[in-house]
Amino acid sequence: MTKLPSATYPWSVAQLRIALAQVNSTVGDLDGNAASIVEWTRRAADAGAHLVAFPEMMLTGYPVEDLALRASFVEASRRALERLARTLADEGLGDLPVVTGHLGSRTGGDGGAGQPAGSPLNAAAWLHGGAVRVSSAKHHLPNYGVFDEYRIFVRGDRLPVVRVHGVDVATVICEDLWQDGGPASVTRAAGAGLLLAVNASPYERDKDDARLDLCARRAREAGCALAYVNMVGGQDELVFDGDSLIVGPDGTPLARAPQFTEHLLVTDLTLPAAEPGVPLRMHDTPVEAPDGSTITVDRHVLSAEPLPAYPAEPPTVAEPLDGLAEIYAALVLGTRDYVRKNGFRSVVLGLSGGIDSALVATIAADAIGPENVHAVLLPSRYSSEGSVVDAEELVKRQGVNGRTVPIAGMVEAFEKQLDLHGLAAENLQARIRANVWMALSNEHGHLVLTGGNKSELATGYSTLYGDSAGGFAPIKDVFKLTVWDLARWRNTQTGTGLPFLYPFAQEPIPDVIIEKEPSAELRPDQRDRDTLPEYTVLDPILADYVERDMGRDALVAAGHDPALVERAIRLVDIAEYKRRQYPPGPKITPKNFGRDRRLPITNRWREPSSRD
Amino acid sequence: MTKLPSATYPWSVAQLRIALAQVNSTVGDLDGNAASIVEWTRRAADAGAHLVAFPEMMLTGYPVEDLALRASFVEASRRALERLARTLADEGLGDLPVVTGHLGSRTGGDGGAGQPAGSPLNAAAWLHGGAVRVSSAKHHLPNYGVFDEYRIFVRGDRLPVVRVHGVDVATVICEDLWQDGGPASVTRAAGAGLLLAVNASPYERDKDDARLDLCARRAREAGCALAYVNMVGGQDELVFDGDSLIVGPDGTPLARAPQFTEHLLVTDLTLPAAEPGVPLRMHDTPVEAPDGSTITVDRHVLSAEPLPAYPAEPPTVAEPLDGLAEIYAALVLGTRDYVRKNGFRSVVLGLSGGIDSALVATIAADAIGPENVHAVLLPSRYSSEGSVVDAEELVKRQGVNGRTVPIAGMVEAFEKQLDLHGLAAENLQARIRANVWMALSNEHGHLVLTGGNKSELATGYSTLYGDSAGGFAPIKDVFKLTVWDLARWRNTQTGTGLPFLYPFAQEPIPDVIIEKEPSAELRPDQRDRDTLPEYTVLDPILADYVERDMGRDALVAAGHDPALVERAIRLVDIAEYKRRQYPPGPKITPKNFGRDRRLPITNRWREPSSRD
Repeated sequence: MTKLPSATYPWSVAQLRIALAQVNSTVGDLDGNAASIVEWTRRAADAGAHLVAFPEMMLTGYPVEDLALRASFVEASRRALERLARTLADEGLGDLPVVTGHLGSRTGGDGGAGQPAGSPLNAAAWLHGGAVRVSSAKHHLPNYGVFDEYRIFVRGDRLPVVRVHGVDVATVICEDLWQDGGPASVTRAAGAGLLLAVNASPYERDKDDARLDLCARRAREAGCALAYVNMVGGQDELVFDGDSLIVGPDGTPLARAPQFTEHLLVTDLTLPAAEPGVPLRMHDTPVEAPDGSTITVDRHVLSAEPLPAYPAEPPTVAEPLDGLAEIYAALVLGTRDYVRKNGFRSVVLGLSGGIDSALVATIAADAIGPENVHAVLLPSRYSSEGSVVDAEELVKRQGVNGRTVPIAGMVEAFEKQLDLHGLAAENLQARIRANVWMALSNEHGHLVLTGGNKSELATGYSTLYGDSAGGFAPIKDVFKLTVWDLARWRNTQTGTGLPFLYPFAQEPIPDVIIEKEPSAELRPDQRDRDTLPEYTVLDPILADYVERDMGRDALVAAGHDPALVERAIRLVDIAEYKRRQYPPGPKITPKNFGRDRRLPITNRWREPSSRD
Repeated sequence: MTKLPSATYPWSVAQLRIALAQVNSTVGDLDGNAASIVEWTRRAADAGAHLVAFPEMMLTGYPVEDLALRASFVEASRRALERLARTLADEGLGDLPVVTGHLGSRTGGDGGAGQPAGSPLNAAAWLHGGAVRVSSAKHHLPNYGVFDEYRIFVRGDRLPVVRVHGVDVATVICEDLWQDGGPASVTRAAGAGLLLAVNASPYERDKDDARLDLCARRAREAGCALAYVNMVGGQDELVFDGDSLIVGPDGTPLARAPQFTEHLLVTDLTLPAAEPGVPLRMHDTPVEAPDGSTITVDRHVLSAEPLPAYPAEPPTVAEPLDGLAEIYAALVLGTRDYVRKNGFRSVVLGLSGGIDSALVATIAADAIGPENVHAVLLPSRYSSEGSVVDAEELVKRQGVNGRTVPIAGMVEAFEKQLDLHGLAAENLQARIRANVWMALSNEHGHLVLTGGNKSELATGYSTLYGDSAGGFAPIKDVFKLTVWDLARWRNTQTGTGLPFLYPFAQEPIPDVIIEKEPSAELRPDQRDRDTLPEYTVLDPILADYVERDMGRDALVAAGHDPALVERAIRLVDIAEYKRRQYPPGPKITPKNFGRDRRLPITNRWREPSSRD
């Protein structure tokens, strides 16, 4: 092993037109994802690109979770990668280098006790001339939040540096960028002219700038331009927003793709040319990286000579969406992909006349078209007349399919057999409604959408197997105050032509639905505030407690009212089991009760109610 | 850093009476768990023990999952440990060294990007003289199956060697034993006379002998006797079976505690005495362990002089339970602890007259007493008369509370509003039954038990929000063939006096329930075999596919019928979403669809149907 050599300076410059293919893949759809790679590679070739890059795990989809531990899936992935390389050549695309994420495995069997079976790798391959030229694995495996990569992958320890038209291009994968002193440092030492990172980095509210800042910092560490290609699309609870970008060696943004849509970001770069004649410097010699790991550079030459000078095209620099538009776009894409990737074409949902189900209906109409949305009005003896009228007005404005199924007779049939009071009687109505949705789902093949928001989910203000039932919960990760904000925002977008919105002729959500006081309408004159603190004070406490893991003392120190803090903590701490029963929904914050929040069900610990 | 010195040989021998406290702790119940440590330490003192050891994470319960990432919980755990040390002294127990698992944290803050917040430690502490004398953390963090320890802990790198009555005792934690060349090797080099391992090792069918074999192998590696104390009790899906044991330096079993019950295993050992006068050999000097890690020995002296010779008591050597008894005991303990630790005193379940609900009722009666079991008979127009009579007979034999709620009127009330056919009509009945259980649960505070077995859960042969609804699924991890085996076995146990069984006066399950052909009774003359392959061929395929992750080709190569393999794979692969909705249940096999099987919901990959 040797110490890192210091960086050398470029001999001269070379041009390269790079295409970042920000595309949507589906977990397990090896053939479909391979076909997508061929199609987007053709587009890149048509655009005159010299190199095209696809996201992390593009060929298998991301995240594959425990599928990586199934030998037959790993083997199918290996064959799919080799077949893809041949197909690209057969289709006349063999000369265009393609970098793509895929599932690999370390040859030589298992890594020992406690290591993942078959030693799977989260890898990126260079395909060229009909063959897989080099593949290397992710160095840093994220194992926090939604990530479980220590469970299913072993670490990589090689850094490929591939010469393309006289430019040395190093490739790394996603989390490799988030650690200081790792492969980026070695990229600098190896004198690469471009660092290419393939990513499947999920959307998170306000994460956007962090990503650009990170790329800028890492480009400076690597001493060269950095091209970042990210996945787009929904996969279970994750939504990938794309936002692929390129920064110069000093961190200056050079190009940026639009969010939440497939896009080929084609950019002409002028890069340091590789020093000719010394392609093997540092090749195959383990070096100590500053992060403590040992990394071996893997040099390959696809084409040694720089291209003749050509006129560069101006780059695309898309503006990121602003706050509410970005969240709404994430919810629409997450909902659309969950419906379609699971083989559904239509959805059914209960429309109560309240704000939550109104927003969910609107998101669904934007996602899959109002003609595929089936709204059911399920009035009970406690439903106000306003609720029914307001729901009917929304059905009319949006052109979704509407149907009314009064539940009074069903409630009575249960009450004839059972003597129920209080919460038991309230919950019964919510469960009867869920039975109706599920019956319509089973009879007609619709996916059931659930209307619960994050505030009620966090506090347990919902009925198990009642309003919490369904296949997908579009606003699961949206606090109530944001539900109102999103509804108001959506109503301002009529005629703006944003590509992820359905072109309704008028405001899709009746104002009266936005303005009314929230109520579950399960007993006479019920109001949310009978049970919960006002959302204006509750939501900020929930954000600090649930998303930031602040304890009671920290919450009080942050300025929240001590009595309300106590009350919110009690509500949240006893709601854990209900949250586990919730269907998946698009994730937009650091913690949404899904895979990113794991707590024991049986837990006797309670936040201390005062300093002791 | 230095190389490992070779082992030295003992100077002489010394006696030690060690007490392994195989006790039941509850996650988050810091006060209750501390009280339990004080109580069992008193019993150990009363038994004349010189050292008492408690399981891994005894003070916090195990597993704490993401609670470890909450600063207020870590702080509360730290205070609880210090308070416990003082309480032991205040109670006159300060002279008896106590080793206990607890949640610690690495001082000096976070470990960097991607490291768990607050650097929590899965640690074991020595308490003596009113203080925490030394605490050290687990070296090897399991991150497979049900374990997520990379997510929440940082690794330890110290090996405490504590001199007690002239014997050097090294302590390690659970997974440390499962890796070759780790702390056990360093234990040998340090010349310790006893290796003490504290564990929270969950029960798994047929795991028993693996554990004894492992202890024997590790004792030989450490060159000294090994004492293994394990947790007992149910925690969510995990069941800890105890089975604490001691082996000699050559691996010979010396003592063993009974399974599935709290027990103080008190054993007199004659051990190598520490070489006097050199307590600091290897102290605080990092050494390279053969597993590649760096370990620092931490030497402490509590009492340097060996005890005067005393007459040893004969050891306890309990026999492990045989196959079906062991499984049944696990299900009873898992069910009892889930009910009680979640604050319930009674359960409600639907009794159909079939084998699954009959076995669940019996397990529940054994777990919490028949007087706390509420069985509801919910006949529909498709229920055979036999079903009702058989269920009534079971109620009578066991003395559980029985109640009949016919559902025909409720079904009709739905059918008046909805035109349902086929599966939609069948599922409606199952969901109406679940509504009744849930209503009784809400009205009376019973926990709902669910009757689904692993065969139907794996194949999706159940109704979402119907028979799969409930708080706990006692036979979730039991294949249908084993359901029958357990029912027959339970009927042979009348009068045997096994401590985990209720003393019914006669066979608790009517033979006719065991003998009848399985049916969901949701349409006329329905039989399981209309939809599923016979269980005698289905269950072995499921075991290989689900528990052993074998692919199609491997299943066929193992001798399963190719057409049935295809059919079983299709059923399992489309049932994933339903499995996610299942309530927790006691885990008895390597994979039971809970935390130990993580698959994407949206997954288009299917096992290839033939070699391609």
